[in-house]
Amino acid sequence: MEDEFKPSNSMLMNVWSKKPLVCQLTNYVTVNDCANITICAGGAPVMTDAIEDIEDMVAISSALVLNIGTLNSRTVESMMLAGRTANNLGVPIVFDPVGAGATRYRTFTAKNIIDKLDIAVIKGNSGEIATLCGMDGKVRGVDSDSVFGADAALNLALKTGSIVAMTGKVDYVSDGKDTYKLENGTANLDCISGSGCMLSAVTGCYVGANGVSIDSVISAISAFNIAGELVTGSEGPGTFKARLFDSLYNLSAADVATRTRKTKL
Amino acid sequence: MEDEFKPSNSMLMNVWSKKPLVCQLTNYVTVNDCANITICAGGAPVMTDAIEDIEDMVAISSALVLNIGTLNSRTVESMMLAGRTANNLGVPIVFDPVGAGATRYRTFTAKNIIDKLDIAVIKGNSGEIATLCGMDGKVRGVDSDSVFGADAALNLALKTGSIVAMTGKVDYVSDGKDTYKLENGTANLDCISGSGCMLSAVTGCYVGANGVSIDSVISAISAFNIAGELVTGSEGPGTFKARLFDSLYNLSAADVATRTRKTKL
Amino acid sequence: MEDEFKPSNSMLMNVWSKKPLVCQLTNYVTVNDCANITICAGGAPVMTDAIEDIEDMVAISSALVLNIGTLNSRTVESMMLAGRTANNLGVPIVFDPVGAGATRYRTFTAKNIIDKLDIAVIKGNSGEIATLCGMDGKVRGVDSDSVFGADAALNLALKTGSIVAMTGKVDYVSDGKDTYKLENGTANLDCISGSGCMLSAVTGCYVGANGVSIDSVISAISAFNIAGELVTGSEGPGTFKARLFDSLYNLSAADVATRTRKTKL
Repeated sequence: MEDEFKPSNSMLMNVWSKKPLVCQLTNYVTVNDCANITICAGGAPVMTDAIEDIEDMVAISSALVLNIGTLNSRTVESMMLAGRTANNLGVPIVFDPVGAGATRYRTFTAKNIIDKLDIAVIKGNSGEIATLCGMDGKVRGVDSDSVFGADAALNLALKTGSIVAMTGKVDYVSDGKDTYKLENGTANLDCISGSGCMLSAVTGCYVGANGVSIDSVISAISAFNIAGELVTGSEGPGTFKARLFDSLYNLSAADVATRTRKTKL
Repeated sequence: MEDEFKPSNSMLMNVWSKKPLVCQLTNYVTVNDCANITICAGGAPVMTDAIEDIEDMVAISSALVLNIGTLNSRTVESMMLAGRTANNLGVPIVFDPVGAGATRYRTFTAKNIIDKLDIAVIKGNSGEIATLCGMDGKVRGVDSDSVFGADAALNLALKTGSIVAMTGKVDYVSDGKDTYKLENGTANLDCISGSGCMLSAVTGCYVGANGVSIDSVISAISAFNIAGELVTGSEGPGTFKARLFDSLYNLSAADVATRTRKTKL
Repeated sequence: MEDEFKPSNSMLMNVWSKKPLVCQLTNYVTVNDCANITICAGGAPVMTDAIEDIEDMVAISSALVLNIGTLNSRTVESMMLAGRTANNLGVPIVFDPVGAGATRYRTFTAKNIIDKLDIAVIKGNSGEIATLCGMDGKVRGVDSDSVFGADAALNLALKTGSIVAMTGKVDYVSDGKDTYKLENGTANLDCISGSGCMLSAVTGCYVGANGVSIDSVISAISAFNIAGELVTGSEGPGTFKARLFDSLYNLSAADVATRTRKTKL
């Protein structure tokens, strides 16, 4: 069934009017894209990974994004402190378990993060989500496609109490009660590095401005994927990426309202 | 009053003819933009943050840029050694106190850098400059707008002996003797991450090629902001950013001469 | 003499059909470009530098790229472990000795890597290659032009047993037996940061998919440089860079076949 358009509309406008500061402890591969997409979604980015810095920065932020794309022992320690600080202050955490299942260190770290911290949203690809919910997932780098359907998202949501988004050609989002299938996007998003990381940043903007709810997460995913659909004039991954920023920046509530394809399962 | 055009002209040409090597110990968010904008300004970038590496690299450089956008204890130590090396060798230092005022660690580190090192140019936004000159500044991430006018720049210049540039919708530059208001630029520069960091890199090119003077700093800021003004055909932040590099690369001395808007206060 | 076109053709197609996972332990300046160019070459990138992570990641990869552009003691240790793991598993290593000759730390580290590890391909500019083969090279940052001709590449290949590519306006590739001069490319590639790093990533894709041979390396260099030649419509370094990704992504085997300019010396 197609839900009403109102929530997405107001959610997009809320991000632009509230301009949430989104603290991001993320990888150095896609960090610039994450900063820029945050601005283009209507938020304000701040990146840090120093343990001396992170408590003060989380304290002034509306959301915290943790992304283990290029983790190391120093930054993992900072992530845990950032997460505890966020939990104490009620700042919602979006977690992107990049590469969980691909290496033991990533799997261990991702599991530790969801065990020790209260995570608002977990967003990963099929292999990462499968790994975290205990289904064996063969993960090839960070490029795994969705093959599991809604079950993995629902299972991990029930297990963790987090809202779980499993992204791929089709996206599944579950809060343990309701589960949705989302069908926006374009294959061009698979041809650039960092589309998943950028989506986590956008999700940080939406939960920062709109609160933690499955609607916030759906709105974030839909906005990002519709922005991808609306890119015109690109001739390959390089120009597509430049225009993706433009497209999200120019995205209107009406675009989201008329184009969102979501189905409650 | 509008000053003469000569200095800016020859300064732009000096950068291209001397191709100063600008050593940059900067953040991992915007480091790629800083490297590319250095090339587009006419300089040559080299980035490093290893304590084993920094003395040799500073020794072959024409300027050093220190930027605390993603500082940590290891890189701060490298910054201090880089700074001492630069001071010993007479290599001018451009300092960008990203986020000073936002967290205690950044404020402490920024103050320590300007206390312990001889800084040629301090370039920051209003909140950062206000924090460093002892005026209370409420800093929200790295996005603060200018609200203080020329006083903060002048005060910090007098206090430190550095040339101080406070950037925002209007830019103020002071060497403690003269203070200028600069009015070039475009709001599009606020829609991309790293425009401030890039300006610091460009400033490194200009002081590296032209020596340390308020005219060098004014020329750098004017060149960068005029490049922003001259971007055409962008449809949002992504295409604007790509075209900003083009625009600075293609900037002529005549563009700078005819478009610079500076007023001596 | 102009060789036949067949090898390059099938090599490009092999990369796209095998989609080799290329593990990259590289610098934080150009890492995003390296990830994206890997995708545009037909491979799949994975970046990591954690010592806890690197063995598992190398084990699932088809090639390993080591790049010392922003080395530090922690990442150098990870590089050595990554390299030993790759050697044990038969995963080919592409090494980019960024800045060797510019600082003692880089020179020492680069020499240590080629001494201790079995490197399949060394790719550097003239100053870097000259430093490694014991000819004195004056290296200015990472921008040195080629001045030595084929001798340095051949000498270093004989000394190390690696295939050596020395890049510049003209590129020289030697496996110690055969030496080729390659003459594709465009000066626009010199106006962006990271073209050398990107070429190393592309080389990782080609040896990962096609095995270690001088033909694989020649095909990688030719593909990347021809992609640069085929960029149209750029107005400066920013738009050129975006379109370079497009161009490599859209590169056909026929483009490579008809445009490759290589001469056996």
